Amino acid sequence: MTFEEARAAFPVLERYAYLNAGSVGPLSRATSDAMAAAERDELEHGRGTWRYITSMLEARAKLRASLASLIEVEAELLSLTTSTSEGCRIVLAGLGLTAEDEVVTTDAEHFGLTGALHASGARVRVAKVRDRPADQALDAILAQVGPRTKLVGVSHVLWLTGHIVPLEELRDALSVPLLVDGAQSVGAIPVDASAFDFYTVSGQKWLCGPAPTGGLYVRDPERLAVALPSYFSQAGYDPDGAFEPQPGALRFDATWIPVGFLDGLQAAIDGAPDWRYDRARETTELCRRRLVEGGFDVVTEPGHGTLVSWRWPGEPKEVAEALARGDVIIRDLPGTGLLRASCGYWTSEEDIDRLVAGLSAL
Amino acid sequence: MTFEEARAAFPVLERYAYLNAGSVGPLSRATSDAMAAAERDELEHGRGTWRYITSMLEARAKLRASLASLIEVEAELLSLTTSTSEGCRIVLAGLGLTAEDEVVTTDAEHFGLTGALHASGARVRVAKVRDRPADQALDAILAQVGPRTKLVGVSHVLWLTGHIVPLEELRDALSVPLLVDGAQSVGAIPVDASAFDFYTVSGQKWLCGPAPTGGLYVRDPERLAVALPSYFSQAGYDPDGAFEPQPGALRFDATWIPVGFLDGLQAAIDGAPDWRYDRARETTELCRRRLVEGGFDVVTEPGHGTLVSWRWPGEPKEVAEALARGDVIIRDLPGTGLLRASCGYWTSEEDIDRLVAGLSAL
Repeated sequence: MTFEEARAAFPVLERYAYLNAGSVGPLSRATSDAMAAAERDELEHGRGTWRYITSMLEARAKLRASLASLIEVEAELLSLTTSTSEGCRIVLAGLGLTAEDEVVTTDAEHFGLTGALHASGARVRVAKVRDRPADQALDAILAQVGPRTKLVGVSHVLWLTGHIVPLEELRDALSVPLLVDGAQSVGAIPVDASAFDFYTVSGQKWLCGPAPTGGLYVRDPERLAVALPSYFSQAGYDPDGAFEPQPGALRFDATWIPVGFLDGLQAAIDGAPDWRYDRARETTELCRRRLVEGGFDVVTEPGHGTLVSWRWPGEPKEVAEALARGDVIIRDLPGTGLLRASCGYWTSEEDIDRLVAGLSAL
Repeated sequence: MTFEEARAAFPVLERYAYLNAGSVGPLSRATSDAMAAAERDELEHGRGTWRYITSMLEARAKLRASLASLIEVEAELLSLTTSTSEGCRIVLAGLGLTAEDEVVTTDAEHFGLTGALHASGARVRVAKVRDRPADQALDAILAQVGPRTKLVGVSHVLWLTGHIVPLEELRDALSVPLLVDGAQSVGAIPVDASAFDFYTVSGQKWLCGPAPTGGLYVRDPERLAVALPSYFSQAGYDPDGAFEPQPGALRFDATWIPVGFLDGLQAAIDGAPDWRYDRARETTELCRRRLVEGGFDVVTEPGHGTLVSWRWPGEPKEVAEALARGDVIIRDLPGTGLLRASCGYWTSEEDIDRLVAGLSAL
């Protein structure tokens, strides 16, 4: 598959410099066709037949295997979710923490993770990494870990800065479980999640699947309570709700995912080229360099993920809206003074030129 | 709108005697068109623009108002969910129950409710109503309520028998909150949820919307903790995840619902005729009578919801599958020996004739 072919799969790129996969990825025609085919079948043949239920369960099993393979874990240890936020909620609700416990995170996380940490009832200790060089993140996180720490929850790639957290070193230094939010990593950079306790996956960002879709890797399902059970969680139940859990992480499957979305994400995964990570890395570095050369105050260091952030003196939201009027789509990061561009394997040099030209014209 | 017009809106009815809205309702062409239009827009214009986010938030507000109106509550007290199961999880996780507490339910509930009751950690007391006359349900439930009871959680219409639980009398006899699972009521029978503490809504069953969609009414949002927060829950947050909640029940919105599903459920609600409840009640009684006349062991009493259940000597799943080969779609109820037909306002006398003929031929 050539770059031109890969790019042509996404209709949105015909018009837009779409640089916001960090929020929601572009949809390919193949993904859209898979969704439409399933929805046509639902319209004509209904959604309450055994045939339909069987096809839904088969699509779940197939997608589970694909997502698991993508992050190098066993399929049975991967739960299908609707988002990384849901994955974080499943983990935190299942740990049964109390006000005596502590959890550790950073000041550069999405609310999908920190909201769940807060709701756990544990005290949340926050390592300041956002305004520091990336190589100080490890020490900053470890400085917050103490005898009451029950979990460390951090992103693989920080959504505000694009910096990669050194997870292997962090894990080696910890004796408590590590929850990794993979919202900005899976599909963007190579991931081996098997090294961690919990790892969340977004289907709708860098994997370019329908929203909402996602996954949660749980290394040891028997050690996490099923706090948010669904009909998918059980292999048999009593009238009082006590239940025999499904094997492995299937017990954490909490939400119905329509067949069109299962098939659509499957098509998206199947359609990605094998050079995806190399190309995305090169394009991100190109974007970073062009912004620096353009005189913008870039905070993302070289050699990290596929996000590039820069400070903006003034109101970032207005900048994002002004660029959108010229069909250049980026993300403003509320409350931070930051703007962010997301570079996928599909991103062209022209997309980046349009971004820099748009910014320079403001 | 005539009956013929209302029925013609659902392509699945051209071929099938589709009697399984209690699992998932039929989709109308208008709903399907609304989904397809939104998905085409996502394909061509992307999902990460301000324009898209704005349209999504507007569609949420509009749907929230419609669902709220349907169950006679204020829009600000209705959370948008993906299912009644999610609604039950939001309530039970938010109550913060312990092993010292008790919750009361019946032996005719779906796992979506009882699983959440069990996961709360409280002791679950189960009133036996399934094999008793409907007018004994109230006493059976109240007999399980005691000084440790913190919540009573029951369905409005029981999914196994179709019987209506006398909720007003139950509420008047209780001093603890009442969680009502509206999976088999909203869209099937008139509902005024404002009389209860918590009431769940399914979008994909009797309302004939896309799956997963739904709602949760919370009478007093300030008294329920936000245990499962999402980005939608907050109006501002700190790095440690502490947050200012959105007003009312908006704080419980836990899951992204795609614009096509919001628009699709909206179209489904807008497309329902005003004679829906009367017609569905008459058709259900016709179905019940025909099954009795056919010599089947019907357990559903007259004058309840829009489900009709009957006992089957043998394996109900095989019966459901055999009928499906003749395009008659009903539900077998696992582990109960029961079969169930769902009668909507769209159900015809011919659908019922096909059911009875199919059963008689076995």
